[in-house]
Amino acid sequence: MKFNYNLIIEYDGTKFIGWQSQKKGNSVQTEIQKTLKKLLKDKIKLIGSGRTDSGVHALQQNANFFTSKKINDKNKFINSLNFFLQNKRISILDLKRKNLNFHARFSAKKRIYQYIILNRLGSLALDRNKAWHIKKKLNLVVLKKGAKFLKGKHDFSTFRASTCGAKSPIKTISKIDVKVVERKIYLIFESQSFLQQQVRSMVGCLKYLGEEKWSLNKFKEVVKSKKRSMCAPPAPACGLYLKKVKY
Amino acid sequence: MKFNYNLIIEYDGTKFIGWQSQKKGNSVQTEIQKTLKKLLKDKIKLIGSGRTDSGVHALQQNANFFTSKKINDKNKFINSLNFFLQNKRISILDLKRKNLNFHARFSAKKRIYQYIILNRLGSLALDRNKAWHIKKKLNLVVLKKGAKFLKGKHDFSTFRASTCGAKSPIKTISKIDVKVVERKIYLIFESQSFLQQQVRSMVGCLKYLGEEKWSLNKFKEVVKSKKRSMCAPPAPACGLYLKKVKY
Repeated sequence: MKFNYNLIIEYDGTKFIGWQSQKKGNSVQTEIQKTLKKLLKDKIKLIGSGRTDSGVHALQQNANFFTSKKINDKNKFINSLNFFLQNKRISILDLKRKNLNFHARFSAKKRIYQYIILNRLGSLALDRNKAWHIKKKLNLVVLKKGAKFLKGKHDFSTFRASTCGAKSPIKTISKIDVKVVERKIYLIFESQSFLQQQVRSMVGCLKYLGEEKWSLNKFKEVVKSKKRSMCAPPAPACGLYLKKVKY
Repeated sequence: MKFNYNLIIEYDGTKFIGWQSQKKGNSVQTEIQKTLKKLLKDKIKLIGSGRTDSGVHALQQNANFFTSKKINDKNKFINSLNFFLQNKRISILDLKRKNLNFHARFSAKKRIYQYIILNRLGSLALDRNKAWHIKKKLNLVVLKKGAKFLKGKHDFSTFRASTCGAKSPIKTISKIDVKVVERKIYLIFESQSFLQQQVRSMVGCLKYLGEEKWSLNKFKEVVKSKKRSMCAPPAPACGLYLKKVKY
């Protein structure tokens, strides 16, 4: 008998090389896999909904794994996982049994990322490593116009890392929200999938726009150019959160 | 010539022994005083709006100091302070010149504290040391009733630490709010002043109520008893924030 379980995972990405296991450094995937193997005494291969870069956080990453062991007491199992993972700033929020076809990456319908900017003079004490600190007051009216322009189907080559392995640079952003709570700016992006570094590259350009370093026309030109060389420096990883994956 | 300046300060209290300078350990007050002395080359005594315990955070602590040096470029001065303070998780948010009568502690009209509970099964990854993790699902209806009961003028002896030096245990809580955002519960308390450990002690009792360990009647009985021995264990410091001081 084979079971397929999906985990919902929160993590603080600060001290990780990212989601994905790599030869060097600690990854979230490896830490959870190790703990699952220990508890289930089974070979486990964890399949994430997608990679997150070093320093990027997750509010709700999803990852599934197959095992021959049935998990009977869900809450007890989650508590056991968290007993080992909590000091690593990883938390298992939920576990659900899925049918054998479920694949955390290929079954995903939408991915929602959130980027947090803290726009104030004072450096970050409580939100250190959790937001991008921008001192210069951003023009939110124009920043929102830029965000709106990114919505929909585009060739996002401008925002694509050179190492990106996606077949096509054409993606559809189904939703972009800009929410402002006091000095915090939340940029929310929803798409079936994103190019490598797409969100951080878009946020980097939106920052140039908000700082009035670029006009709205210049911003649109950059998007339409499809040239990586036109892109502003990508926003730092610490402000980015994988917020949700819809199936 | 003598100048009186007030600082607005954010800090992560996790690694401090508290606001107040003490013989042993790092305090927020000492760190800022040291930096002010270095920059102003003047003897500085920083007067906080009140103490916060070890592990308690501040969104907007207020503290004033007198100096013979005039600060001409406010933003430059704030940036210099933060250059030295940011690695200590202290951030100067603002600086304002005040008249010589202003006293951060005695001029305060209201103090607002916020307590954050994260009510979910999974341990805290992103909010570690920033909220109280309570696994058991709290009954928010009854918790809100308890909070409402605490509003107004009471003898708060039940919630008073044995080391509290206040003249009277009678205080007036002018406002209590309970806000729920997903699994986060924000408890907000406003009063001219609080007894030592009053907020954490009240939150500890509200937790017993929310867990249905106590009935609402039992809770009221505990409040009215004026006996410290009746109080539930105080809530941990990590969930408490000095949110604002009104003058």
